[in-house]
Amino acid sequence: MLRGIVAVVDPRDVTAIVNTADDTVLHGLHISPDLDTITYTLAGAVNAETGWGLAGETWHAMDALDRYRGETWFRLGDRDLATHLHRTQRLAQGATLSTVTAEITAAWGLHLRVVPMTDDRVETRITVPSLGEIGFQEYFVGQRHSVPVASVRLAGVEDAKPAPGVLDALAEAERIVICPSNPIVSIGPILAVPGIRDALVARRHDTVAVSPIIAGAALKGPADRMLAELGHESSVVGVARLYAEIAATLVVDEADEGLRAAVESLGVDCIVAPTVMHGLAEATALARIVIGTPE
Amino acid sequence: MLRGIVAVVDPRDVTAIVNTADDTVLHGLHISPDLDTITYTLAGAVNAETGWGLAGETWHAMDALDRYRGETWFRLGDRDLATHLHRTQRLAQGATLSTVTAEITAAWGLHLRVVPMTDDRVETRITVPSLGEIGFQEYFVGQRHSVPVASVRLAGVEDAKPAPGVLDALAEAERIVICPSNPIVSIGPILAVPGIRDALVARRHDTVAVSPIIAGAALKGPADRMLAELGHESSVVGVARLYAEIAATLVVDEADEGLRAAVESLGVDCIVAPTVMHGLAEATALARIVIGTPE
Repeated sequence: MLRGIVAVVDPRDVTAIVNTADDTVLHGLHISPDLDTITYTLAGAVNAETGWGLAGETWHAMDALDRYRGETWFRLGDRDLATHLHRTQRLAQGATLSTVTAEITAAWGLHLRVVPMTDDRVETRITVPSLGEIGFQEYFVGQRHSVPVASVRLAGVEDAKPAPGVLDALAEAERIVICPSNPIVSIGPILAVPGIRDALVARRHDTVAVSPIIAGAALKGPADRMLAELGHESSVVGVARLYAEIAATLVVDEADEGLRAAVESLGVDCIVAPTVMHGLAEATALARIVIGTPE
Repeated sequence: MLRGIVAVVDPRDVTAIVNTADDTVLHGLHISPDLDTITYTLAGAVNAETGWGLAGETWHAMDALDRYRGETWFRLGDRDLATHLHRTQRLAQGATLSTVTAEITAAWGLHLRVVPMTDDRVETRITVPSLGEIGFQEYFVGQRHSVPVASVRLAGVEDAKPAPGVLDALAEAERIVICPSNPIVSIGPILAVPGIRDALVARRHDTVAVSPIIAGAALKGPADRMLAELGHESSVVGVARLYAEIAATLVVDEADEGLRAAVESLGVDCIVAPTVMHGLAEATALARIVIGTPE
């Protein structure tokens, strides 16, 4: 989605506000999976097959960690490790996560602003009946998000402040786009940082969300199951309900044409469009729709 | 030297007490250069050309760190990184450095006990007139130990306790060997941990030191310059003087035959032998001499 947006808008005019509640500390390294995936993807360096990590990556450090029966379930490629080494070093020197993120994205030649939702530590904790409360990466990577979720807690979020630039960007943007991502664990943490939801409510008219649910299912990840398990409806109507307060418009896939009236009955304008993005062409077309830029 | 010792004595009967005052935290990782060099060397995995790191190493993480203009002066190979990742993870879990070291050496198939001098944090700080006080690795690696040293401080050593097993090993050993290493910054920190010098004084009769100085010079490293800069004599006599209280015997190279009388005048027995070790053969021969094992 973001690749499409920076293709139709000058990247210098784009701010991406990114979830950091998935961040984890592993082997002493501060890992920010969402920030890194966005950086690598926009830089054209992401491993397109997995959707995370770097293309052409090597795994010598992880392979060597096997000797120690170390924790290798969270795969860190050799070149990817450099990002975590640098971030950890800079944070230890007192730099904020947003400063380090700006350095990293600049080093990759990106021109948009990529901003963590907060510089404070927020941690998504997932309660899984069989395991108790576990960290998000233990759920998502360790358990391959294949276990039912009883509840989600965002530890530390009450005391988190939006990172510098977040509220200004939300106040000044011509258009705010809620990308098609997991409403509970990807968009949810951003909305839970005190001040951000209110800023969006104030800009509801200019905010467009794209449904991550198509015909009741998520294209990837556990969003559909998680919505159902947590008492929401796994449909564009369920998504519209979650975002009704903050987004005046919801883009739904053509497969959900039949639910347009149900979405609109919630007071949410509904745009029906192709939302499955196989590549840059579809992402760009969708970006033109959400941004409202004529072709 | 240690390779020779474990070749002539059952490794299960050998305890190596290792300097950890060179340890450093870089990129959030706990790095123990002396422990790792000993482990890799005894495992036959060390890079023989450099004398540190792993043979056949790759440098993808360090190369990638260049993108961020990160701190790459301390070179960490991809496979070597695994050791630091594992150590850091285990320490964060509450394991002691000696526990982690036992795990790492076992993982490399070593049978001797490799024990850090202490589980507490001790830090060698070097005062260099041009730079002020810097960390040991900044001096040794960053400055390639090419700058004069005004003083050496062992921060934290007063409060350090010998690691579990250190004092027992010193009390029970049939023979104690002070390997030919820098008396100031490699052997010195071990002796400075409260309790260790006293333990050695009590075993003086069974302690043999091997001079790292041959004909006034160190075979590698800055030991000769450092001795002179800090007011010691860069000769086997200077070494004998430093160790006289704790070692009844000093092994000196044949090149220093002429200083035998000067060493013995300090009340230190002097064994003259070939001490330059080009490989395992010479190390084994020297080990037989220091251990007193007939060929």
